[in-house]
Amino acid sequence: MTEQFDAVDVIRTKRDGGELSPAQIAWVVDAYTRGAVAEEQMSALAMAVFLRGMGREEIARWTDAMIASGERMDFSSLVGSGARSATADKHSTGGVGDKITLPLAPLVAAHGVAVPQLSGRGLGHTGGTLDKLESIPGWRAALSNEEMLAQLRDVGAVICAAGSGLAPADRKLYALRDVTGTVESIPLIASSIMSKKIAEGTQSLVLDVKVGSGAFMKDLASARELARTMVDLGADAGVRTSALLTDMSTPLGLTVGNAVEVQESVDVLAGGGPADVVELTVALAAEMLEASGITGVDPADALRDGRAMDVWRAMIAAQGGDPDAPLPRARESETVVAGADGVLAELDAYRVGLASWRLGAGRARKEDPVQAGAGVVLHAKPGDRVRAGAPLLTLLTDTPERFARAREALEGAVVVAREHGGRPEPASGGRGVVLETVR
Amino acid sequence: MTEQFDAVDVIRTKRDGGELSPAQIAWVVDAYTRGAVAEEQMSALAMAVFLRGMGREEIARWTDAMIASGERMDFSSLVGSGARSATADKHSTGGVGDKITLPLAPLVAAHGVAVPQLSGRGLGHTGGTLDKLESIPGWRAALSNEEMLAQLRDVGAVICAAGSGLAPADRKLYALRDVTGTVESIPLIASSIMSKKIAEGTQSLVLDVKVGSGAFMKDLASARELARTMVDLGADAGVRTSALLTDMSTPLGLTVGNAVEVQESVDVLAGGGPADVVELTVALAAEMLEASGITGVDPADALRDGRAMDVWRAMIAAQGGDPDAPLPRARESETVVAGADGVLAELDAYRVGLASWRLGAGRARKEDPVQAGAGVVLHAKPGDRVRAGAPLLTLLTDTPERFARAREALEGAVVVAREHGGRPEPASGGRGVVLETVR
Repeated sequence: MTEQFDAVDVIRTKRDGGELSPAQIAWVVDAYTRGAVAEEQMSALAMAVFLRGMGREEIARWTDAMIASGERMDFSSLVGSGARSATADKHSTGGVGDKITLPLAPLVAAHGVAVPQLSGRGLGHTGGTLDKLESIPGWRAALSNEEMLAQLRDVGAVICAAGSGLAPADRKLYALRDVTGTVESIPLIASSIMSKKIAEGTQSLVLDVKVGSGAFMKDLASARELARTMVDLGADAGVRTSALLTDMSTPLGLTVGNAVEVQESVDVLAGGGPADVVELTVALAAEMLEASGITGVDPADALRDGRAMDVWRAMIAAQGGDPDAPLPRARESETVVAGADGVLAELDAYRVGLASWRLGAGRARKEDPVQAGAGVVLHAKPGDRVRAGAPLLTLLTDTPERFARAREALEGAVVVAREHGGRPEPASGGRGVVLETVR
Repeated sequence: MTEQFDAVDVIRTKRDGGELSPAQIAWVVDAYTRGAVAEEQMSALAMAVFLRGMGREEIARWTDAMIASGERMDFSSLVGSGARSATADKHSTGGVGDKITLPLAPLVAAHGVAVPQLSGRGLGHTGGTLDKLESIPGWRAALSNEEMLAQLRDVGAVICAAGSGLAPADRKLYALRDVTGTVESIPLIASSIMSKKIAEGTQSLVLDVKVGSGAFMKDLASARELARTMVDLGADAGVRTSALLTDMSTPLGLTVGNAVEVQESVDVLAGGGPADVVELTVALAAEMLEASGITGVDPADALRDGRAMDVWRAMIAAQGGDPDAPLPRARESETVVAGADGVLAELDAYRVGLASWRLGAGRARKEDPVQAGAGVVLHAKPGDRVRAGAPLLTLLTDTPERFARAREALEGAVVVAREHGGRPEPASGGRGVVLETVR
């Protein structure tokens, strides 16, 4: 870094609504990573970015600076060597019951595309992919770069923990944003996600941008803006990127938690599973295959004929897991029943996620353990008819003292409406899970 | 503090344009003072306040919380005991060449009103009252509360360092704002100033709110808003408060520095001195006397008949200073002369202040020493006719290597205009120093 700036001048520029220069951005991100810009200065800058925004050029340079703070990975040796035709990656902005990575990675790999999924653990009301997979006896999340490459070559799919070398500026900044009320900013979310994905070095990327109560983005307009920002960032960096906007007003599938979500994923890989999970898995797979130049196939065929399941079993086994071992089950359960006949009009994603978290499926602090068996199983989805006394939800935990607070989280989350003749529209407006595509 | 909040919730409330509740404000200021709210959290909140603002009620509660972080002083024992009829205080938002406290405190005390002036040191381009007085041989700024009370009773005026017990939250927050680009916020400036002044326990307060290039507030509208905010805060706290908006587009008087400003103040106390310094001193004195119930007197009489000078001498001597000792003089000087005949159209306050600071009159860091003799002496003021080759400014320092950077600071600061017939208007529009009164 040759050029020097004053942190207060940089903060003031953004505070007063100005545009940060590429040199200012490169300097401030690097100086922050080195500790030369203090945490309290970066938090003031993050709040100024939150309230003043950043333009496309600024977001691109901010993303570049975060990539430059760490190492870059390179999977190009896999491609064209015969085994794999391309690499494709998927990222979800996070939702309740979002286990899609689990069936998706093997499904896409079954078509000859390498799928490197560097994933995280859950914090707050949305679960983490690694937490879910860790409910499989023996499975381990940590792989060296060499192990990862070998598995991609041999199996085609890998889901593992992101190493600490990728975009360390982002890790530091994310922890700061978390405690300073500066998380829900489109420029900061987009640059955080895309810096890691670009540093990973995939050829194409499909984004699953969630919309609704269980997601960061509560409305379609902000989700669309976030998707557009990320797709542009990917394009600028030479990564073929597209995004699906998908409904997160109600949980995905019928399970929320860890082991219960693995079981549901295995059901999908076996050709079954809930319709919304299948729909989204297939839609994302089609998008990833198209970005990899594979057209004219129905991805769902590989669910029906067992090829995706074969990759799943190989993928789990390669990371020490036993695909045939029984999954852990919670020691205690309680069931919530319908109070009256009617139609389930609403089942709020955020509140179900919160209940699952309080039951022990998620963690409050990074170092907390999670319960493999905890979570929520749904017995009805919005639009379904229910009878008084019929089970709506089952709450699962090893520690029954958690039931009370989980039930509190669910207050107002479940709305059963009296029927007025016809079947009412479900919360998603009957459109299915995928709402829009942004390319 | 009984109620507990989450710092991130408080930050988010303000970030999203909401109003902080009295309980949130009391909690966050107290928790910050105790270290339970981190610096990076408070800086994010300060930036949110900067960009979202605070309402009158919020500012009042924020000020209360800062007062509650420390001790309160009480001068009520002085009043009505015979010696002193009232207590009155003055605060200036800071300007270049602003030595007004020096002649003002003795002038008001000469009328039987006790004037406790707790002052600070300079940081940046505006000088500090204590730095100026410390150029008087023997004078000391630090007094105990008992010494201060005794001097107020016996002499009537005291100018000394504010103890660390007053509004410690403000001291901590001010240092944070200084490095995070959150200084120039009206709610934060107003609450910072007023928390200290209310904690001091004076009966009345007159504010000198500077407007122009040498001041925080560059335009009349923001100065008016700051003044109104502070006058309301004072009124809410039971302190009779008014404000003068005064011109700071050009330096006050003909001297900027430390010893040179003391000399100019003594000239005013002797019945002489520059017209603008006399005008402002008398206007502020009249305001303070009126707030103390003293009407129908011309404060300037006490400058002409030597009563104010008597109080000055007693005040300096009471703090160990020798009022008859010669003041320090800078070892080196350089003179800036006019390049052509004309009228001095502009003499920029900020740039003259910066030059004085660079000559050694001010400090870059709190722990730096200042030069008693350094500064700038003006030989002409805006509106004056000047001849080619006539001196405009004299630069003073003990360290001649500083001249070059001081001259750089002055580039563009001095504008000599050719005469077009009549005498051009001075920068202040010919209105004098006092622009408006806010009560």
